Amino acid sequence: MVEAVDPDEASRRAREAGLVFQREDPLNCETPLGALIGGSVMPTRRFYVRNHFQIPRLDPSSWRLEVGGLVERPSSLSLLDLHNMRSLTLTVTMECAGNGRALLDPPTDGEQWGLGAVSVAEWTGVPLVDVLERAGVKAAAEEVLFRGADGGTVAARSGVTRFERSLSVEAARDPDVLLAYAMNGEPLPVEHGYPLRLVVPGWYGVAAVKWLTEIEAIGSPFTGFFQVDRYIYEWERDRRVVREPVTLQRVRSLITEPSPDGEVEPGVLAVRGVAWSGAGLIARVEVSVGDGNWEAARLVGDQQGYGWHRWELITRTRKAGGTTLRARATDLAGNTQPERPEWNRLGYGSNAIHEVSIRVR
Amino acid sequence: MVEAVDPDEASRRAREAGLVFQREDPLNCETPLGALIGGSVMPTRRFYVRNHFQIPRLDPSSWRLEVGGLVERPSSLSLLDLHNMRSLTLTVTMECAGNGRALLDPPTDGEQWGLGAVSVAEWTGVPLVDVLERAGVKAAAEEVLFRGADGGTVAARSGVTRFERSLSVEAARDPDVLLAYAMNGEPLPVEHGYPLRLVVPGWYGVAAVKWLTEIEAIGSPFTGFFQVDRYIYEWERDRRVVREPVTLQRVRSLITEPSPDGEVEPGVLAVRGVAWSGAGLIARVEVSVGDGNWEAARLVGDQQGYGWHRWELITRTRKAGGTTLRARATDLAGNTQPERPEWNRLGYGSNAIHEVSIRVR
Repeated sequence: MVEAVDPDEASRRAREAGLVFQREDPLNCETPLGALIGGSVMPTRRFYVRNHFQIPRLDPSSWRLEVGGLVERPSSLSLLDLHNMRSLTLTVTMECAGNGRALLDPPTDGEQWGLGAVSVAEWTGVPLVDVLERAGVKAAAEEVLFRGADGGTVAARSGVTRFERSLSVEAARDPDVLLAYAMNGEPLPVEHGYPLRLVVPGWYGVAAVKWLTEIEAIGSPFTGFFQVDRYIYEWERDRRVVREPVTLQRVRSLITEPSPDGEVEPGVLAVRGVAWSGAGLIARVEVSVGDGNWEAARLVGDQQGYGWHRWELITRTRKAGGTTLRARATDLAGNTQPERPEWNRLGYGSNAIHEVSIRVR
Repeated sequence: MVEAVDPDEASRRAREAGLVFQREDPLNCETPLGALIGGSVMPTRRFYVRNHFQIPRLDPSSWRLEVGGLVERPSSLSLLDLHNMRSLTLTVTMECAGNGRALLDPPTDGEQWGLGAVSVAEWTGVPLVDVLERAGVKAAAEEVLFRGADGGTVAARSGVTRFERSLSVEAARDPDVLLAYAMNGEPLPVEHGYPLRLVVPGWYGVAAVKWLTEIEAIGSPFTGFFQVDRYIYEWERDRRVVREPVTLQRVRSLITEPSPDGEVEPGVLAVRGVAWSGAGLIARVEVSVGDGNWEAARLVGDQQGYGWHRWELITRTRKAGGTTLRARATDLAGNTQPERPEWNRLGYGSNAIHEVSIRVR
């Protein structure tokens, strides 16, 4: 059995699987979305990788999850302890808040992600709420803080900053928030957080702390680097800067077939893709082929849990030469994709309508 | 991108993924079921492999699916033609009819499968009924014959026998029968039938013809080797031999955790597994720990399509030393697993209650 727990091997595996590299160290790479054929989930080896620091090397036999802070019964859980609790499996879309940042004009700082910083997996683990209930969160607690084993230096802060994020106690008690130890039927690969990561359905990936080692109930809002200095929208509205935390994934659809800049035969044209939203299920996806008229795509199958919805439109090419395909999703909460991404200083939530140029032979 | 279309590589990939080899040539190997953690589907590289002949080497650019016989409009379809038709994705359990044959007493001929000749995948392709409707099956047709590109010599028949199987026209028209070109979001690997295989939900794997090249509507029952000389139950009933074709998968549950002959800590004991039936959804799974009393296991999540249902029981160990775990599934059609497998000459459908010995420390 190939074990996927050696950090030194993560980069080689990513390259072999055809991931698109943003950065080698720390490892950051996009999924080749066009390679997906009818998948509800992304095969694990092609799942995008987002790291803020080097992948930590953890020993599963000595690893513990410490649960403390404002709780009645602090505890220290081994992997076996977690394994012996009730399990939950959910299909959940993970998307980096910076996905699509490269499309912003003017450019912003941060990884210049194209559109492949998103993937879906089936996650298995223990409902976080079960662990919180065992510990007994005190009434004085306002947030739950999650600490990963990864850390390093960050801009304008001295010393080592760990990767830490908090959720309100209410959000943490959502029955679908998972402490995941498996992904697509196998233990988490090290680049995805082995041995344990948080999975917060509907939220951008920043909430899904990897290499989780500590959970702490705290009495006041957390002000760590990744909570207040990053992963904040800074919109300019009515000439004032409005700051707002990055939370739910914004509605988006992506065309996975045909490939960008691909050539297609004249006649029947199959356009396929995926669509998702953190705010609710997908209501519809519309596609335009060259002429700007929107046609309704067919949503394929049931949307599973918090996964993306696949869609397809079997149509016909209009004429030979270059043409543009566009896809626009709308969720059940009524959100739809904008024509152009809404610029913000740190470049998050860029979810404009996806456009793909193709050539008809 | 690693392409999985080289037959010479299939065996190496299987070995790397930890499959349990039955035979190297033709390649036959079982999935290591215990390695599955919370998966609705089996990761493709660990999906069991059943071949009757050597894996054929097909060129996708010249490959065609010929549709002929008693049809109004014979046709020859390329991969692109199929790709340009409406797609369907289904999660379907595939099980070899010989799964569990090694448990039969006295032994029978055939591959001596343990219990790992079963896996689940998400299959994507074109509904067979769409292809049949385009062709226009004539009223005189009684069956639809499916021919794979694989062949070789078989016992008591001269010349080369191709792998061929038929379905009644009615069964072939089931809207969920698929001409699958993808598996778990990727093109079929060659050992699983690249570029196209039939998938018949609920049926034993023999119906799922791989490397499909021809579909022929025929006017009388097919009598090929794999239809009438193999994949036939020969039961002895009331001192007479009764022959019956192998069709739907019989109800079965398998314990995936803890591992057979494994050691567990005293105290909390998590027993997990999967259950499925070709005759309908799973109604319940019961587990006994040593003492023979049956406890109801919890069915985890929704059963997806024709996939297996995962189940778990969080219980406690009774005492130190050796003990036996047993699991028994019952489907909504009322079928349950027998105490002992029902012996038949060719060793099919062996679905007795699964028993696993463990040791409590």
